[in-house]
Amino acid sequence: MTFPSDLQIARSAALKPLTDIAAEMDIGPHLLEPYGEHVAKIKLKAIDELADRPAARYVVVSAITPTPLGEGKTTTTVGLGQAMRRIGRRATVAIRQPSMGPTFGIKGGAAGGGYSQVVPMETLNLHLTGDFHAVTAAHNLLSAILDNHLFQGNEAGLDQHAITWRRVLDVNDRVLRNVIVGLGTHTDGIPRQTGFDITAASEVMAILALARSLSEMRRRLGRIVIGYTDDRRPVTAEDIGGAGAMAALLRDALKPNLLQTCENTPVLVHAGPFGNIAHGNSSVVADLIAIHAGDYLVTEAGFGADMGAERFFNIKCRASGLTPDAAVVVATVRALKAHSGRHHIVAGKPLPEALFAENPDQVHAGGANLRKQIENIGLHGVTPVVAINAFPGDHPSEHAAIAEIAGSMGARAAVCTHFADGGAGATELAEAVAEAAQEPSAFRYLYPDDAPLRDKIETVARQVYGADGVDYDLAAARQLDAYERNGFGRLPVCIAKTHLSISSDPTLKGAPTGWRLPVREVRASVGAGFVYPICGDMRTMPGLGTRPAAHRIDIDAEGNIVNLS
Amino acid sequence: MTFPSDLQIARSAALKPLTDIAAEMDIGPHLLEPYGEHVAKIKLKAIDELADRPAARYVVVSAITPTPLGEGKTTTTVGLGQAMRRIGRRATVAIRQPSMGPTFGIKGGAAGGGYSQVVPMETLNLHLTGDFHAVTAAHNLLSAILDNHLFQGNEAGLDQHAITWRRVLDVNDRVLRNVIVGLGTHTDGIPRQTGFDITAASEVMAILALARSLSEMRRRLGRIVIGYTDDRRPVTAEDIGGAGAMAALLRDALKPNLLQTCENTPVLVHAGPFGNIAHGNSSVVADLIAIHAGDYLVTEAGFGADMGAERFFNIKCRASGLTPDAAVVVATVRALKAHSGRHHIVAGKPLPEALFAENPDQVHAGGANLRKQIENIGLHGVTPVVAINAFPGDHPSEHAAIAEIAGSMGARAAVCTHFADGGAGATELAEAVAEAAQEPSAFRYLYPDDAPLRDKIETVARQVYGADGVDYDLAAARQLDAYERNGFGRLPVCIAKTHLSISSDPTLKGAPTGWRLPVREVRASVGAGFVYPICGDMRTMPGLGTRPAAHRIDIDAEGNIVNLS
Repeated sequence: MTFPSDLQIARSAALKPLTDIAAEMDIGPHLLEPYGEHVAKIKLKAIDELADRPAARYVVVSAITPTPLGEGKTTTTVGLGQAMRRIGRRATVAIRQPSMGPTFGIKGGAAGGGYSQVVPMETLNLHLTGDFHAVTAAHNLLSAILDNHLFQGNEAGLDQHAITWRRVLDVNDRVLRNVIVGLGTHTDGIPRQTGFDITAASEVMAILALARSLSEMRRRLGRIVIGYTDDRRPVTAEDIGGAGAMAALLRDALKPNLLQTCENTPVLVHAGPFGNIAHGNSSVVADLIAIHAGDYLVTEAGFGADMGAERFFNIKCRASGLTPDAAVVVATVRALKAHSGRHHIVAGKPLPEALFAENPDQVHAGGANLRKQIENIGLHGVTPVVAINAFPGDHPSEHAAIAEIAGSMGARAAVCTHFADGGAGATELAEAVAEAAQEPSAFRYLYPDDAPLRDKIETVARQVYGADGVDYDLAAARQLDAYERNGFGRLPVCIAKTHLSISSDPTLKGAPTGWRLPVREVRASVGAGFVYPICGDMRTMPGLGTRPAAHRIDIDAEGNIVNLS
Repeated sequence: MTFPSDLQIARSAALKPLTDIAAEMDIGPHLLEPYGEHVAKIKLKAIDELADRPAARYVVVSAITPTPLGEGKTTTTVGLGQAMRRIGRRATVAIRQPSMGPTFGIKGGAAGGGYSQVVPMETLNLHLTGDFHAVTAAHNLLSAILDNHLFQGNEAGLDQHAITWRRVLDVNDRVLRNVIVGLGTHTDGIPRQTGFDITAASEVMAILALARSLSEMRRRLGRIVIGYTDDRRPVTAEDIGGAGAMAALLRDALKPNLLQTCENTPVLVHAGPFGNIAHGNSSVVADLIAIHAGDYLVTEAGFGADMGAERFFNIKCRASGLTPDAAVVVATVRALKAHSGRHHIVAGKPLPEALFAENPDQVHAGGANLRKQIENIGLHGVTPVVAINAFPGDHPSEHAAIAEIAGSMGARAAVCTHFADGGAGATELAEAVAEAAQEPSAFRYLYPDDAPLRDKIETVARQVYGADGVDYDLAAARQLDAYERNGFGRLPVCIAKTHLSISSDPTLKGAPTGWRLPVREVRASVGAGFVYPICGDMRTMPGLGTRPAAHRIDIDAEGNIVNLS
């Protein structure tokens, strides 16, 4: 008997009416706007209506440094949410909306997997309620207004070579990375070089994820810096008359989307900011609703704890004002073996045989990464719990090795099998998380708002990444000085580095030491509210591979979508 | 007392639950998928479920040749639908979805006006259920697959300079008309010149509008020709493995959207193919549902009767197999005065005073246009009815002049005031339409499928446009020969000419004679199923003006959208 595919499992799930799912969150039907049969948007007035209810414990799911093997972070987030009901607690899961680019590329969808999935997975992975499309439309409307501003006489005095606002599309399309627009005749605009990013990388997406309300979103949109004048003054979306129309386009997109897991646990899916150059967390408004909608709110942060969780604590929690009670660090035997540095693993290629041999020593050898990521949680005063996400080829001695590493750091640990067993496979994890979340929270930001940008970068680099210090290219140093002068110095930092290592070198596994963080340039997402130093080659528009999923995905004779994974 | 704005009227409308609206169409709640509070999609199985019910009379609303004054065609379509109930008949209205480009540009929204509007107008004009976004996504996914095909080795042997597939965005953005993509390094794709059209101009939009079912849409997508090989063979979306994923993206978009008028008449809003280079009519599937959902189905065709109605008869009715029973030709006093050629009218500028002086002779002087458009309806064996859309400054003698012109052509006519009075202002028109639709239909296509493309073009040019003949540029002649060789000769033709004159010269008013139609080039939308000869400068990507609506549109403190018109 073969294990069924994710799509088969998703199709076999018995979905409940969304009014029932919402009722589990104490959310009445008057707060729902249905979108198709199995998705609803939740009205933003739910935030006020639920405000007097008791606060849920706030749990963030993070991980060790990712490997091409996949550690199952979304699956664990969903499985933990499902497991909470098995131990008698009400939980809501909050995750990002997947980008359609990777869905048609190599990665496939992002709905969790096995018996820990968000359903319907086709809806989740394609369009959902159109929030990404609204971001695309709002972003590109501002782009059109900008180029029209140049064409109509450039009243704001924009320096054509200091325009930072690009265009976006939710597709993996490498030829759009660098383009020249405005060719043709004099009625076809002013020619200039620019490019497209994937929609997830839009500052508008980060704003959607960080805004606390519609009016605050409107203000953030107005603060977007689209470029600089000839005398280096920032020009904003408000200055060129674009922010109001963007807000109109995003009005409905700010309402979070309610779905369910295949075990009928409520799931809020909302916003999907890129993890490379933005904070990579789901939305603040979803959490502001769900924090009063049950006993637990389980959310996920992108990449490893050095990336997503650090930004969750220092950017997202700053924006929301919420205080996390516990953090899960997902680890797998195979990934820790990979972190030993003794295997050469390439995405899409068959795994080396040696990876599957029983070898607890190799798990210990890769354990430095897990220890550092546990420490990164602790740095923020949050109690860590290690989720040992079991895979079929694992050996008990190897699970024990992970538990030992966790124990040596004073962290709880639990083996879980939620992929194969659903919520029932993660009850031990749920108990451990419940215990951890009972401990009094000592949550703290890593740095104060009023620290200079260089201090903020240095603090993250040294304390979280384990760097010996930071080196700035001349351009980066000048940009930092300019941002301080422009009044952007109070913003938190979102360091854009590789997610494949805690260091800035993607080939270094484990917990690298004896290195310095090189900052090549620095950019600012003033509307979203962070400054992002760039350390390495940050791709903001993926490409399609030799055999993209798009070639296989289709509809069958009954109109069902096939080969979506 | 000033007349309230469209947005004020729309907001004051008492909307009924969509289940009630659907019930008027004999459509049960099991066939509805709600999208937000005031929009629902209708499942495609409604076509089969309703098939045994009596057929509605099928009425198309067309117009004289448009002027910058606006003749109120959508308003009349909505008003006529509303009026049918006042005379005791059940009617459904079917219109196109407006494009967001013009909504933020100069034109404003397209929901009708005054007391003959589709509501909620904000939803209609912004996103609706995301169908346009799905078209954008499907179109651009094929573009990405195409450029990836070149990048991965060009197995199909595409001639890089014979690629006809571009990209689309639903925004007025002139700098995207002509772009170079693929700049950067060797990992950033193959550089080439291309461009973006507005989403409405996508062949995918025309396919969405013309498909009869999901499986037929899938086949049409596969037939899209994206370019030609070095030896001039067509390469299709199927050939490069893009059609299945496009169909998956468009699965929900093929379901029509149900809204209501401000008097609670059911309205299907679905698809929005560009009138310039495509057929410019709302969808076939909407009509296949609504044709069994009441006594009357009132739909609208773009531009004047020479353009939208001709394509409605020869392209849309060919695709649907439906037979129209009557056609309304909307005319106004002011527009016929403009067709006299005695006024210089510019969009966005104040109107000349002389236009408002009582002058029935001038109406008669412009009457040639109305006569020719009535004749163009009759050419297809359909009974014409002239809707005299009254404006505040009109004089009874001028309305009488229009009625005389109609009478001289044997057409019924009725003055209507539905803008100010809603359905009550169009009951006389409704009675006239009901009478006309009772006459036995002698509907006929203008040319048979198997006529050569040149004969089809010549037939439309001579009979509908009143041309003395057709002249082909060398390129156009070669393309026609190639299309006949490629087997595209059986397709109907969609002649891309100006909509501002029945001739191909936008400055010629009335019903020009003594001219020949110049065909500069010919293109083929093989998936949508038509060949389109291009006669003049057809813009497929608008630009923003000096004071676009985008600068005014915003949200207020309560989250309402303001200044959308």
